[in-house]
Amino acid sequence: MTTQLNALQRYVKDQNLDFAYLSDPTTISYFSGYEGEPHERVLGLVVFPEAAPFLFTPALDAEDARNSGWSDDIYSYQDHQKPWEMIAEQIKQRTDGNDIAIEKDHLTVDRYESLQDALGFVQAADITPEIQKIKVIKSEDELKKMQIAGDWADKALEIGFAALHEGVTEKEVVAEIEYQLKKLGNEGMSFETIVLFGDHAASPHGVPGDRKLKREELVLFDLGCAYKGYMSDTSRTIAFGTPSDKAREIYDIVLQAQTQAIESIRPGVTAEEVDRAARSVIENAGYGEYFTHRLGHGIGKSIHEFPNIMEGNPLVLKEGMCFSIEPGIYLPEVAGVRIEDCFVVTKNGCEPFTQTPKQYREI
Amino acid sequence: MTTQLNALQRYVKDQNLDFAYLSDPTTISYFSGYEGEPHERVLGLVVFPEAAPFLFTPALDAEDARNSGWSDDIYSYQDHQKPWEMIAEQIKQRTDGNDIAIEKDHLTVDRYESLQDALGFVQAADITPEIQKIKVIKSEDELKKMQIAGDWADKALEIGFAALHEGVTEKEVVAEIEYQLKKLGNEGMSFETIVLFGDHAASPHGVPGDRKLKREELVLFDLGCAYKGYMSDTSRTIAFGTPSDKAREIYDIVLQAQTQAIESIRPGVTAEEVDRAARSVIENAGYGEYFTHRLGHGIGKSIHEFPNIMEGNPLVLKEGMCFSIEPGIYLPEVAGVRIEDCFVVTKNGCEPFTQTPKQYREI
Repeated sequence: MTTQLNALQRYVKDQNLDFAYLSDPTTISYFSGYEGEPHERVLGLVVFPEAAPFLFTPALDAEDARNSGWSDDIYSYQDHQKPWEMIAEQIKQRTDGNDIAIEKDHLTVDRYESLQDALGFVQAADITPEIQKIKVIKSEDELKKMQIAGDWADKALEIGFAALHEGVTEKEVVAEIEYQLKKLGNEGMSFETIVLFGDHAASPHGVPGDRKLKREELVLFDLGCAYKGYMSDTSRTIAFGTPSDKAREIYDIVLQAQTQAIESIRPGVTAEEVDRAARSVIENAGYGEYFTHRLGHGIGKSIHEFPNIMEGNPLVLKEGMCFSIEPGIYLPEVAGVRIEDCFVVTKNGCEPFTQTPKQYREI
Repeated sequence: MTTQLNALQRYVKDQNLDFAYLSDPTTISYFSGYEGEPHERVLGLVVFPEAAPFLFTPALDAEDARNSGWSDDIYSYQDHQKPWEMIAEQIKQRTDGNDIAIEKDHLTVDRYESLQDALGFVQAADITPEIQKIKVIKSEDELKKMQIAGDWADKALEIGFAALHEGVTEKEVVAEIEYQLKKLGNEGMSFETIVLFGDHAASPHGVPGDRKLKREELVLFDLGCAYKGYMSDTSRTIAFGTPSDKAREIYDIVLQAQTQAIESIRPGVTAEEVDRAARSVIENAGYGEYFTHRLGHGIGKSIHEFPNIMEGNPLVLKEGMCFSIEPGIYLPEVAGVRIEDCFVVTKNGCEPFTQTPKQYREI
């Protein structure tokens, strides 16, 4: 059993729970080592205070689960079978107790009700906060994987910058980045790669399209790569030619905001203080209303995970926590600028996973 | 308001519900026309029996939602605000009733509890079955989009076949397919493209890796493309050189199974009868235990949606329903064969969305 699963089992025992039912494939892979993608089928990991945990998988994934290194029991079901009754049957062989915890941020209401029906319980506790507490501090091994994922993201930006030329479309730049990375052996992107030109980048969730690159525009990249199940996430905005003074002005403000946030990070500081460090720069410059999102999000096996770096989050940062710092200004009809790196909190500050320079740059 | 949203509003009224809260981004896009991807943020569509529906989005998506053509109210929240209280406040301005329906197959337990707390209700009904009933019959407009998505998938297979040569890796073939498609303007894949060589394909959820193609192997492709939010999904297995007699044998059985299933499809037949038509071929040939999944799944805006074509599903097929037919045999240490097309049920039979030939083929 992994150290992490041991910690979770200890919690289940300390809380006098009869069992915890985990449903999120990412959580399950974190604790079990089995990277499953059940789609709409049922995948579960059941953790008891004393008895060995078991995995429950769709039949067509059972072979992969067995090959994953998981050494405790695996049960599986075929599509015509009733998974919840089968899970309940296995649980009842180990406990008849009804003090249960589930992942409330993942389990859907219908599955919760199926589990309630199959086991005859009324209410479950939420194990998500404890899972977040275990997952939020990254191990050396996790940090190594995240560093390699970050190196891939730097490589991706380098390919993207080189692909910029007059007339190229946003989609073509995305295609070029992903193709070159796959050829180099990258295992996949962390999310849909974003490349946006000029004022199209003023929509922070804009989708790359057939817009052609013109001179004197800013180009916004937001991308990440996966490495052994760990994610990276970085954004850069670079100039193709010489954009308007306004565009240049917001670039400088965003960079200053990110710098100020980074300098504020160390153990003991709160998430909201870090958000404030960046946000105050943007607000003081008069662009507060154009910075419409939190400063950052946790990262690890998921691209967005606990903790949020945002207003109203009093969470105290600790060594080993990892998150993005990504201030942005999205000025309609002018430009969108975002600068983002992910960091691990160190003893006295923080270290980035990505190294691509951030000085204002024209190509 | 779209015809579909009208139908849903009529249902809310007929059932004497005070409102329905929709949470699934795919459902929301189907009914509202707004294609949002809120990630871990909150996106909702609230439908009342009489009052106009409203959209609730993260602040950074509000602009996109406004530009999507949605003409009723949109409310949004910033990351530091409390979305459930804001949604409840809007609902309370329209109704003080507590007969509520939610999407139980999508809403998570924690969000359900947040909604319960904010509105003070105890139990909600499930609106998923009604949504499935509306969505399962595709309109002419939807079928046109699905046909174009299917044409893209045929193109993808053509590129994939052309990319096969001795020593190429599975990942390289995937990279080639996705790159060429993006260059041609394809809006994206429906899911992670699968290309698996030889016995690696015996894992039906295998992930493309660095395995190099050797002569005398079968190659399994499973891929799909998106077009205007609609999906395609197809699998082909072709021979690179002349594989073993065993591999050839299972190919012929799988093709016969698919053919028999296709011939059984028409309005009035049940989903389980279609599954049986294919499964009996594979069972009679002695490979029943190696066909470890349902025969097919519904398809539309989602790659997997209602209905399942499987044992135990008595659903009666109707004109306009769309689903995959994808028998497979996964013989460890020999090969994996799957042949898949998606079909729309027509007046007297069915029509495929993909046309790539299925006769056994060696290249």
